[in-house]
Order: sequence, then structure tokens, then C-alpha cells
Amino acid sequence: MAVWPDIVRDLTDAGRHLDIPDVTKWLMKVLQYNVPCGGKNRALTVVEAYKSLSPPDQITEENLRLTRILGWCTELLQAFLLMVDDIQDHSEMRRNQPCWYLYNDIGLTAINDALMLEMCIYQLLKKHFKTKECYVNLLEQFLSVSLKTEMGQCLDLLSTNFGKKPNLDLFTMDRYNSIVKYKTGYYTFVLPATAAMSFAGITDPEMYRQAKTILLEMGHLFQVKDDYLDCYGSIEDIGKSGTDIAEGKCSWLIVVALQRATPEQKKILEECYGQSDIEKVNRVKQLYQELGISNTYAIYEEETYNLLHTHIQQISRGLPHDLFLKLLNRTCRKIGRKD
Amino acid sequence: MAVWPDIVRDLTDAGRHLDIPDVTKWLMKVLQYNVPCGGKNRALTVVEAYKSLSPPDQITEENLRLTRILGWCTELLQAFLLMVDDIQDHSEMRRNQPCWYLYNDIGLTAINDALMLEMCIYQLLKKHFKTKECYVNLLEQFLSVSLKTEMGQCLDLLSTNFGKKPNLDLFTMDRYNSIVKYKTGYYTFVLPATAAMSFAGITDPEMYRQAKTILLEMGHLFQVKDDYLDCYGSIEDIGKSGTDIAEGKCSWLIVVALQRATPEQKKILEECYGQSDIEKVNRVKQLYQELGISNTYAIYEEETYNLLHTHIQQISRGLPHDLFLKLLNRTCRKIGRKD
Repeated sequence: MAVWPDIVRDLTDAGRHLDIPDVTKWLMKVLQYNVPCGGKNRALTVVEAYKSLSPPDQITEENLRLTRILGWCTELLQAFLLMVDDIQDHSEMRRNQPCWYLYNDIGLTAINDALMLEMCIYQLLKKHFKTKECYVNLLEQFLSVSLKTEMGQCLDLLSTNFGKKPNLDLFTMDRYNSIVKYKTGYYTFVLPATAAMSFAGITDPEMYRQAKTILLEMGHLFQVKDDYLDCYGSIEDIGKSGTDIAEGKCSWLIVVALQRATPEQKKILEECYGQSDIEKVNRVKQLYQELGISNTYAIYEEETYNLLHTHIQQISRGLPHDLFLKLLNRTCRKIGRKD
Repeated sequence: MAVWPDIVRDLTDAGRHLDIPDVTKWLMKVLQYNVPCGGKNRALTVVEAYKSLSPPDQITEENLRLTRILGWCTELLQAFLLMVDDIQDHSEMRRNQPCWYLYNDIGLTAINDALMLEMCIYQLLKKHFKTKECYVNLLEQFLSVSLKTEMGQCLDLLSTNFGKKPNLDLFTMDRYNSIVKYKTGYYTFVLPATAAMSFAGITDPEMYRQAKTILLEMGHLFQVKDDYLDCYGSIEDIGKSGTDIAEGKCSWLIVVALQRATPEQKKILEECYGQSDIEKVNRVKQLYQELGISNTYAIYEEETYNLLHTHIQQISRGLPHDLFLKLLNRTCRKIGRKD
């Protein structure tokens, strides 16, 4: 948070857009409401990764400041993506406050606000990293991860059949894995870590490849937990009320439920999944209960957590195991994330 | 159009995202529906500018192919911006077909589709320009113009008071000029010409400055004509039916009308502007008639056109006057643009 005021100042720098002061004022509001109040998992990953990967003599106050700015860039990307997702998913709450598009009846104007936050990333990168060797890499990483995330979001939306009755035959574990990899894994884990790697001067492609493999596995566990909390987490825990069942999302819970459902149970899911009617949502939840999904989740979490531990131990190529264990413990262990 | 199939192939390259073939198929649809069917003014500007500015021995078949790809990048930006604008403005038609978000009930999923087109720009730039000296410049130009356009859109949306009753006191000519500069001028004129300048190897900042000044003036005339056609153009002419009055937009027509309206007429405008009720829209149009706005427009167009001619003659620094005259004649003269 220490550099956040500098970030806001950089981005709203009164001199730069003197002829449109109203926009500057508005952008400040958009930034304050949407960016700093999350769990900042991604920013923390950037900072931890840089500290762990950079040669010790490079870890200066100035480089740490730049690392924090890079962290805020990942948070801006996250804010942008969440604002748009919330509109598309008809969500109501985010981080314990109304979604931006619902705040003061802002409505679809929120799309443009989200787009401004997205472009702020590149303003910051230009201002602070233009003279660094990693500059083009950073630009390309943010841009290509944005596209991957949007492709994951596309697959997710195609699966929900554009908010009409979802076709449950599409909800296979393979499809779920693809959605998660693209929609969550890249921007939540791969980007923060590899951006830090770039800034730390790492160029060995094999190190990026090994990191990516582990990070996408972590992303998977992270998203499965997110899906679990959407249904079983309290509003206080997750800062919002879950909408996956009503929105007909291809969530881990429904995929596992479909794998186990009898033809009769499947019929009930066909009838009730993806409807906002509270009775139908509760019928789905009851069916999850009958199928013991909650218990399956606990087993899955334990096993995947252990498997990830093993995979981290197997990393070669000078990537510090500590870093990945720290990431795993912070992001995937405790239930109670805020976004 | 000759390179369009290559563009689609580049972007949907089956090998690259083999694990999400559904997204590739969908992206192809989004591209085909939204990108190639406009007037292609921006792409033509890129090509004309490159041909006119590049040293003759550089104008090879290969460089022309790259220039056309750069042209399509500006069309992708345009498609992205229009898709989002149409959602925010509740538009129904675009380029003589239903807006993408209304097509097959796609709805707000269209936001994500627009975002994918935006990111396609940077995929193309990376694939085709990464080894060129202008690469970073091109990235920065597209990114910074995107932010400027979104800031213009923000000012526009702030002026319409988020689709509630607009505050007509805000509708000054100064504010109109700012909106147009940011929302239209940069991406419609400045970006296509300066991207071509970068690719042609021009580095003199004074040349960019002079070009930008003229191009923003052209953008102004272009947008005033667009505003005029929103009210007075036929659906066949503009590929859509106008919504500016109903949406309460800060259009050139209302700004001029407010400058001339008596207190009584202003009261009528207060009452009727920014309402979808057809009676009220017609009352505004009738008032425009009474105030002779159509005639004012014709005079403004003639004068501005002549003034631009003069300014073009005054360009120094080796920028070819022919190029700017050609741009002026193509984009600002004939009524009948398609987007």
C-alpha cells in the first residue's frame, strides 16, 4: 500500500490531461473503489517472487519500489477483469461492497471505466520500465496473458450458453481444466511470477517453462477452492454471494456432481442448474449434499496440495523451492480469500 | 481485403490454441462479423500514409503487406471500440446489421468478444513487427491512443450523466471539442497516420507534432459530420439509426442549438433532450429546424474544409501536402460513410 498513492498520482497526474480534469477526477474514483481493496494476492506474488529470484545485490530500495509498482500492475489487470466479469455474470457484490456497475447506478459505463484501468497498466509500465531491458517482455507478458484470460472467459461463457439454459453435456473435467488454465491460472499465478522473473533478469526459457507448469497447477487448486467457496463460503469470507449455480457456470462442483449423478439425479440438475429461482438453486445444493461433494472437495484439496508439494521439490534449474511453497501456502491453503 | 484471410488465419491459427478449439471457432465468427465490413477509413489511411511517406526504395511488396496488416490493426481497434460503445449507448444497428451484442442474443458476452479483438492487435504486432525498429513505438501508440479514446468516451459518458437526464449546462463548445479530440481524433486520424510514420522510419518529433495538429482538426470535422448524419442521415447512408438525441449525447447539433436558443427554447430542450420517447425526439428535431442548425452545419463544413486546406498548405518539415489533402477528401468530404 505504501506506493499506492504514487500510483494514483502517476495515473491522474493533473498536468498531463489538463484539458479534461473531469476525467482525471473520475479516474481517481474508479481507481480507489476498484483496485486497492482486494486481497492483493497477485501483487504479493510479484514482490515475493522478485525478492526470492533477484541477485541479492540487485535488491535495492529503488528496485523494490519498481517491483511494487509491477505488483500494482497485476492488481490493475485483476480489477479490470473483475469489473467486466461482474457485469457479464450479473454479480452484485465484490470485496464486500456493491459491484462498481451497480454503485450509484453507473451501469454499463462501468465497461469503459474497466477499460481505462486496463490501459493504466501500460502507462505505468512505460513510465517506470521503459529504460529497462525487461520492458518489451513485460508489455508482451501483460498483453498475452490478457488475451489468454479473455479466451478462458470466452470458453466459460460458451459453456454457460450465454446465460441461457446451459448444456450440461459440455461440463466435462477436460473442459473445466481448460477454462481454469486460461481464465485463472495465467493471470493469477503465471503472470505475477514471470513478470518478477523478467524484472529479476532471468532469461533461461527452461526456468520459465518449469515455473509455468507449477504455477498453472497452483492456479487449478486455487480455482477449485474458489468454486467451492462460491457455494459453501459465507458472504463475509468471500466478499460476495455466490452466483455459479444460478448463472449456470461450469464449476468444479457441478462437473464432479455430473460424474457421479444417477440418470435421475442428472435430470434434476438439467432442470435446476442455471436458473436464478432460489428453490432450484437450493435443489442443486441439496443434490451436492447427497452426492457428498463437500467431502470430495476436502479429499481433492488434501491430495492436490500434497502433490504440489512433491512437484515443487522436483523443480530443478535454480528456481527456489521456498518461493513456490510460500505461494502455495498463502494462496491455496487458507479459506478466506477476498477475491 | 487481400490480406484479411491471412489475418484471420494468424489469429485463429489452429495449432496455437489446440486445447481450446471452441474459442478459436468463436473468435473467427467474432472477427468476420465485426471487423471487415466497415468503411475501412482507418486502414486506408495507414496504407496511403505509408505509400506517401516511405522512401521509394522501401516500398516493397513485403512492406506493403506489413502496412496492410498495420491497417487491419487499426480496424481491430475500431471494431473493439464500436462493439463496446454500442453496448453502452444501447445502439441497435451498426454497418447495416444488428449490433453484435444483439445478434443471436449474445448480450453482455459481447464485452469479452470485444476485448479479444483488442488483444488481437498486439498478437499481430508481435507476430509481424517484433523484429522491426518501430515495434515498441507501435505498441505504445496503440496503447496510449486506446487510453485517450477511453478517456474521451469517459468525458462523453460523464456529460450524458450516465444515461440519466443530461445536464445541458455542461454542453459547451469547449467540452464538445475535448470529447471529440479524445474520443475520435486520436484513434481515427492520429493513430493510423503516425503508425504509418513509425513504420516508414520517421523519427523527427516536429513532424509528428505537425501531423497531429492537422489530423486532430480533421478528426473534429469528421465527428461534426458524424453528429450531423446521426440526426439527418438516412439509415442506408450511415448503416444505423441515430440515437444521439434519445441518448442525450453531447453532440455538435445540441451544443450549437443551446448557443442560439431563447430561454423558452432552452426549456423545451431541457424537457425533451435525452429521452427515448419519439415525440420528444421529434420536438428536438423540430427545434433544430427552427434554429436553422442544418444550414449552420453546411456553413461550418464549408469553412472548416477551406481552413483545413489552408493549414495543410502551411505544413513544413517535408510532410507531403498531397497525403493530407487526400485524407481530407476521402474522410471529410462525401456524406455516406459507413461507420
